[in-house]
Amino acid sequence: MKKLKRSGRLVDMTYYLLQHPHEVISLSLFSERYHSAKSSISEDLVIVKEIFEEEGYGSLLTIPGASGGVTFIPRMNNQDAADLVERLKKQLSDPERILPGGYLYMMDLLGNPRLMNEIGRLFASVLADKEIDAVLTVATKGIPLAYAVGHFLDVPVRIVRRDLRVMEGSMVSINYVSGSSKRVQTMTLARRSLAPGARVFVIDDFMKAGGTLKGMVDLLKEFEANLVAVGVLTESVGVEERLIDDYISITRLSEMNIRERTIQVDAGNVLEKVKESQT
Amino acid sequence: MKKLKRSGRLVDMTYYLLQHPHEVISLSLFSERYHSAKSSISEDLVIVKEIFEEEGYGSLLTIPGASGGVTFIPRMNNQDAADLVERLKKQLSDPERILPGGYLYMMDLLGNPRLMNEIGRLFASVLADKEIDAVLTVATKGIPLAYAVGHFLDVPVRIVRRDLRVMEGSMVSINYVSGSSKRVQTMTLARRSLAPGARVFVIDDFMKAGGTLKGMVDLLKEFEANLVAVGVLTESVGVEERLIDDYISITRLSEMNIRERTIQVDAGNVLEKVKESQT
Repeated sequence: MKKLKRSGRLVDMTYYLLQHPHEVISLSLFSERYHSAKSSISEDLVIVKEIFEEEGYGSLLTIPGASGGVTFIPRMNNQDAADLVERLKKQLSDPERILPGGYLYMMDLLGNPRLMNEIGRLFASVLADKEIDAVLTVATKGIPLAYAVGHFLDVPVRIVRRDLRVMEGSMVSINYVSGSSKRVQTMTLARRSLAPGARVFVIDDFMKAGGTLKGMVDLLKEFEANLVAVGVLTESVGVEERLIDDYISITRLSEMNIRERTIQVDAGNVLEKVKESQT
Repeated sequence: MKKLKRSGRLVDMTYYLLQHPHEVISLSLFSERYHSAKSSISEDLVIVKEIFEEEGYGSLLTIPGASGGVTFIPRMNNQDAADLVERLKKQLSDPERILPGGYLYMMDLLGNPRLMNEIGRLFASVLADKEIDAVLTVATKGIPLAYAVGHFLDVPVRIVRRDLRVMEGSMVSINYVSGSSKRVQTMTLARRSLAPGARVFVIDDFMKAGGTLKGMVDLLKEFEANLVAVGVLTESVGVEERLIDDYISITRLSEMNIRERTIQVDAGNVLEKVKESQT
């Protein structure tokens, strides 16, 4: 790269930091990249840090000194989090979304990459200070959420399958009981997906009784992996017996009357979790 | 937002543009956001444009004048594209990846969100000047690729399912013949997934004979949607009869000897496509 002035460095540095969340980047890397003194780089980073933190894009952790570095931790501030939840509440409250069996049509939202990234940033903000090695989800609808969170935390995504037609070498399967339908089902994860001791965030799009999520949590034990937290885009209330107690939810399906086609969607607990994570 | 100096504007503007690829952003938006004259905003954009284009992050199309605006088109330059393909070739050439049936274990790569984003940017670069309304893939392994491309093109992702346990309202199903196994299978897509006339990019992780991709292309006809292009992460050569002729491939599995556990992976045709897209 050619020698850049401050203005050029700021543009490139912002781009670079956004591509490398949660990674320690040495001042030397930037200093060599821009043929600039570390003191100049440090001054640049003060400017980037101020904007990122004021606008709630995330925090910039700087380790001062010649051997220092910087890490970009994506976050979302309270206001943006509240706005995002409000937008989702409105979109999910459309009675047209009511599907047989008390489910909600959400594929249009789940199919929107930009929205997935916003939700991923919200989860990553709550999880910013936890040590996480992988995001686990179950095919199919949890996948876009898992990748969005995985991107902002810079950790891999592992996908549990409900079929057995999988070509991934040796597999680990468990049976689980779907909380709502009470049916016994099977879930499978490739043996090489998770190392023993891995710290895992488990995510899915929708939770009724929590049977599927409970299955994933149980599956972690087979890998000697550890659960860090559970997240869902929408939880459904009014469930007799919830199999998962502690979770982060973005929205909450409080009421759904299939006959009268009425629906009420509220905020989940994520806004409290965002506040907690900032203290 | 408070009034910012140029340095602060450049950081925020870079952040904003990266979150809004392929979107026309008016100068007024930036002018109001930063309480700055449009002439200053225009000068800022010249700086951003120079860095983005020199570093191959993408192009910044500017519409001059008071009612003007700017659009960020993510791209990847030849050198970065070649580096990415080279890295994938090396990683895929590991004989440990050989699975029964002539398949390749790729879940570790597909599970890496940053790598998916790089590949997504590469596809988006080739497709930058095409009009595309949606990215279509089939569950499960094509999904992360589809979202990465969808993000950079700013279009929704639609997911074809091979099971029928799907709660998405009215569904359209077709039967197709898997090219390699010659078995008849079913694929399904929710009726409300694609509007008539939609221009669609179809993507999957792996192509042998191309039966699954051909199925998706046929499915488009049921929706009166139009195929723009087909993309795969890896194509397998030595297939007797290929059902898909025209496609973009990132890598090519040229040889695999299961008995001797040897494997050869080459570059696909994507590097030629990147060059074509720049002329």
